Amino acid sequence: MNYKKLFSEIAAELESLDDKGKVASYIPELGNVDPNKFGIHLTTVDNKNYSLGDSNEKFSIQSIAKVLSLALAFKLDDEKLWDRVGVEPSGTAFNSLVQLEYEKGIPRNPFINSGALVICDILVSRLENPKQDFIEFIRNISGNPNIDYCLKISESEKRTGFRNAALVNFMKAYGNIKNNVDIVLDFYFNLCSIEMSCKELAQAFLFLASNGVHPATHAEVVSVSKSKRINAIMQLCGFYDEAGEFSFKVGLPGKSGVGGGIIAIHPGKYSIAVWSPKLNKKGNSYKGMKVLEFLTSRTQSSIF
Amino acid sequence: MNYKKLFSEIAAELESLDDKGKVASYIPELGNVDPNKFGIHLTTVDNKNYSLGDSNEKFSIQSIAKVLSLALAFKLDDEKLWDRVGVEPSGTAFNSLVQLEYEKGIPRNPFINSGALVICDILVSRLENPKQDFIEFIRNISGNPNIDYCLKISESEKRTGFRNAALVNFMKAYGNIKNNVDIVLDFYFNLCSIEMSCKELAQAFLFLASNGVHPATHAEVVSVSKSKRINAIMQLCGFYDEAGEFSFKVGLPGKSGVGGGIIAIHPGKYSIAVWSPKLNKKGNSYKGMKVLEFLTSRTQSSIF
Amino acid sequence: MNYKKLFSEIAAELESLDDKGKVASYIPELGNVDPNKFGIHLTTVDNKNYSLGDSNEKFSIQSIAKVLSLALAFKLDDEKLWDRVGVEPSGTAFNSLVQLEYEKGIPRNPFINSGALVICDILVSRLENPKQDFIEFIRNISGNPNIDYCLKISESEKRTGFRNAALVNFMKAYGNIKNNVDIVLDFYFNLCSIEMSCKELAQAFLFLASNGVHPATHAEVVSVSKSKRINAIMQLCGFYDEAGEFSFKVGLPGKSGVGGGIIAIHPGKYSIAVWSPKLNKKGNSYKGMKVLEFLTSRTQSSIF
Amino acid sequence: MNYKKLFSEIAAELESLDDKGKVASYIPELGNVDPNKFGIHLTTVDNKNYSLGDSNEKFSIQSIAKVLSLALAFKLDDEKLWDRVGVEPSGTAFNSLVQLEYEKGIPRNPFINSGALVICDILVSRLENPKQDFIEFIRNISGNPNIDYCLKISESEKRTGFRNAALVNFMKAYGNIKNNVDIVLDFYFNLCSIEMSCKELAQAFLFLASNGVHPATHAEVVSVSKSKRINAIMQLCGFYDEAGEFSFKVGLPGKSGVGGGIIAIHPGKYSIAVWSPKLNKKGNSYKGMKVLEFLTSRTQSSIF
Repeated sequence: MNYKKLFSEIAAELESLDDKGKVASYIPELGNVDPNKFGIHLTTVDNKNYSLGDSNEKFSIQSIAKVLSLALAFKLDDEKLWDRVGVEPSGTAFNSLVQLEYEKGIPRNPFINSGALVICDILVSRLENPKQDFIEFIRNISGNPNIDYCLKISESEKRTGFRNAALVNFMKAYGNIKNNVDIVLDFYFNLCSIEMSCKELAQAFLFLASNGVHPATHAEVVSVSKSKRINAIMQLCGFYDEAGEFSFKVGLPGKSGVGGGIIAIHPGKYSIAVWSPKLNKKGNSYKGMKVLEFLTSRTQSSIF
Repeated sequence: MNYKKLFSEIAAELESLDDKGKVASYIPELGNVDPNKFGIHLTTVDNKNYSLGDSNEKFSIQSIAKVLSLALAFKLDDEKLWDRVGVEPSGTAFNSLVQLEYEKGIPRNPFINSGALVICDILVSRLENPKQDFIEFIRNISGNPNIDYCLKISESEKRTGFRNAALVNFMKAYGNIKNNVDIVLDFYFNLCSIEMSCKELAQAFLFLASNGVHPATHAEVVSVSKSKRINAIMQLCGFYDEAGEFSFKVGLPGKSGVGGGIIAIHPGKYSIAVWSPKLNKKGNSYKGMKVLEFLTSRTQSSIF
Repeated sequence: MNYKKLFSEIAAELESLDDKGKVASYIPELGNVDPNKFGIHLTTVDNKNYSLGDSNEKFSIQSIAKVLSLALAFKLDDEKLWDRVGVEPSGTAFNSLVQLEYEKGIPRNPFINSGALVICDILVSRLENPKQDFIEFIRNISGNPNIDYCLKISESEKRTGFRNAALVNFMKAYGNIKNNVDIVLDFYFNLCSIEMSCKELAQAFLFLASNGVHPATHAEVVSVSKSKRINAIMQLCGFYDEAGEFSFKVGLPGKSGVGGGIIAIHPGKYSIAVWSPKLNKKGNSYKGMKVLEFLTSRTQSSIF
Repeated sequence: MNYKKLFSEIAAELESLDDKGKVASYIPELGNVDPNKFGIHLTTVDNKNYSLGDSNEKFSIQSIAKVLSLALAFKLDDEKLWDRVGVEPSGTAFNSLVQLEYEKGIPRNPFINSGALVICDILVSRLENPKQDFIEFIRNISGNPNIDYCLKISESEKRTGFRNAALVNFMKAYGNIKNNVDIVLDFYFNLCSIEMSCKELAQAFLFLASNGVHPATHAEVVSVSKSKRINAIMQLCGFYDEAGEFSFKVGLPGKSGVGGGIIAIHPGKYSIAVWSPKLNKKGNSYKGMKVLEFLTSRTQSSIF
């Protein structure tokens, strides 16, 4: 595949795109980002790299981090993880409590906020120094010591995160949170504050394009089966109540974050990260989704 | 891939399987089927065929037919189809009315009953002789004139199908059914009564494994893009509230029917049909799901 | 109580009222009514009568009839009625299906549409000639042979009543409708088409103000206990999701209809009927509620 | 009315009652109460007193206190209170979050937990020393300085009250809690820990039976209109999803607590408190409801 040519076509295509999205503004740190930032980075499993725009600039990866926390918890907790969180699409918004009440505190999947909080609870139980150990895990799989939490963002989330506090207390009431709620919330808000560039994201996620093994280091991050299952969950649940739309139009497993980032995986081929801060009404990057739709339509190369 | 060897492994594996499923019994015609029937048929895109057990015996394909009605309606109605039905997983049981009320008569996707009824309404509007034209479409794509409705089953469904009558009236109240409700219901009950064998199913669905073109006849059933999108919808919505489980464990786009059949597609490789009448609690074939999980696990060849 | 003086105060008060309601228009027969019609009639248990405006003009009583169908079914079926319908406020709109799905086809109360349909089903089972026998019951309790169904309205409701068709089919699927759905719907649409004047309504309902006995004829319509219980259900469920508002502001058991009528009962004192066709957003007569609020506030005489 | 005779009939009746209830056990302080405790106290508006059993023994009044916090907040905040909490029955369990999500953080009524928390938030804003001022209010209206919070119970509730923490955080996310969530929760847990005897309860609530004025002191606790409205809300919402059942069988405005207490009001006649710790499945005193049903049935004196 001639990705170089494809990227210049994308660049041309974008000039005429009327971006109708809006930057997330529920905390000032996200609201103050330059709305016109735009980057893409694609890394193939044989380690070729293609990029466009602001692909080396760090941004708040937000919920994209939930794939990595799931990967680590799945590795540590194995199949018994699924006693506490499902693998089904939620059919509702990312922070809904309704489903949680009908299903007695068991979140539908690990990517909605409630499910990600359960994963945090598992990591808090399993890791000696949760925050330190988790960031080390990311640095390891990306071969990049230069990745960190953003204290300013995690503090800001904490000040406004009443809905997440509601979720964690609600699940604690059902017995599905084992640790102190404030510790779990603190870990969660840190998780979502991690900052990475498109390039760093594409490289950190490459193991999911190559059956769980990082192609550069040949280290197994997760087993083949786990790698496939994480991709399956991304496919079904990575875009909240727009998961179908993303599958329908893009046709790759992927995960978005409210900072405007999207990671997508073509198993056996590549991982790609896109960043554009303006979000559509469902909270996913407006331009990011368009770029990925263009990419897989033009190359007729979705997984379907 | 050595499918022949794989099929004998599956046969061996099944001997020790404790099938906990139960045959559907809401109508006598389904309840009377021999619960121990079991068949598999796999057809590759280069037209090699592998089978096991009762793979030539016809059974009631039930909801599997909804993929074919979608294919025809999508072909005829193009993208404006999606004004009247979504592409998102429902997050609820196949015949729930709850979501329909919150979303003002627009079904979540074309595979839950409400969505399939909207598709039927579109075909009733578009086709001159709906029942005759639709069965001809199936005969054409499968190259098999020997496929038909089962009057006994459609009549039986009609006598007990009050919940489907509720759904179609409810959507009519929202203006999302254009034709007479009884005509739409009659078409729907016929659709679900079609009888096919595993072999016939695998061959009829082969176009979805080869970008919309039937490999034998080279006829385009649907466009490349539509073929991929139908697969994407199957992946996300083909197993109702067990879609995640199926993706997680099997990792192929697929669709089940309450008669115990499952069709699954490996794009670029093959289509496979499995039949075993005993259903799990979610209404999907218990043994059928196990077989497909075994198949993709053993070969490490899911799409993810 | 000097009702005469009170009625002239009400008349004065109404001159400055800005009526923000809208006439129901889902069927032309209701939409064509003169929006400025207005009538009140109050009958005391010692048979004094007070009226204002168009109190002798017949109008479509619609859901007000559901109190009378309940009274007759309760009389005939006794306490076992409550196996098939609850006595709890619905907390949702009058025609919601959501609650019905969660509660497996048992309607919350006999005044929401689903509950009224179950009552109709009971009367269809119990009465020899349901439509004839029911209208005779009303003629009897009101001592007025001049009360009848309006065929034009019932036919019009039937043509557009898809939501009610959905409800009755849905409950049939749960086994909570025993008769043919079309016969139950026909009875229901007739029930809602009855035409009465404010005077006729106040007199027909007087038994509920006097412990179940009609004061004029001394005939027991229902027992003391049943009379109290019907009032209790009206208090909690008579105004759908505005029941609390009506209790809060008016403080009497009452029942509204989409034709703009309201009946209210002061046990031991009087029954009162008000008619003004313009409805508030919840589907209850805007001016009618104001009049009753004025009445009980001015006299400080609610049941609370 | 010969209440003395009535009370001995009640005593006789109770001997044959098979009490199927279960004592609340979610905190040890409630679980350890003697399940056979039983008391009644009735106070008439002309200050006659009738009692039976353990009517002078203090118990945890729990949610009954929510009527008194509403009375004080309504007095202080007047009609603008209703911008932040509704007056409609919830149609769901007392601690449901579902309705709160659909209605954007506005609780249905002041007696479900979420609504009571909003009332607490208002009192925290309005009162200088919330806990001290509130208990003084109760001491005043009951003419009894001997009423207090129970620290052991409030501490125990705090340790297990994750669901209430979820509710208050959830409403804070919608902007419907103005104060710090921990302060509001602390006030709430104290409120529910108040201990009173049947006699003290009946006397403290007597103002609601006499148009807002305490008959002994002639002091206006709340206005006539407010008194009637509080009764109306009790009638519709005092028993959570059993409000209809209580209205239907007892026919008086009332409020229950999970400690096994019930207060009921016959406007113009009396207030009555009953205590029996064993609860039915809906969380209301099993025997307490039976006693009140017997009382109003025997005397044929419900408000309906």
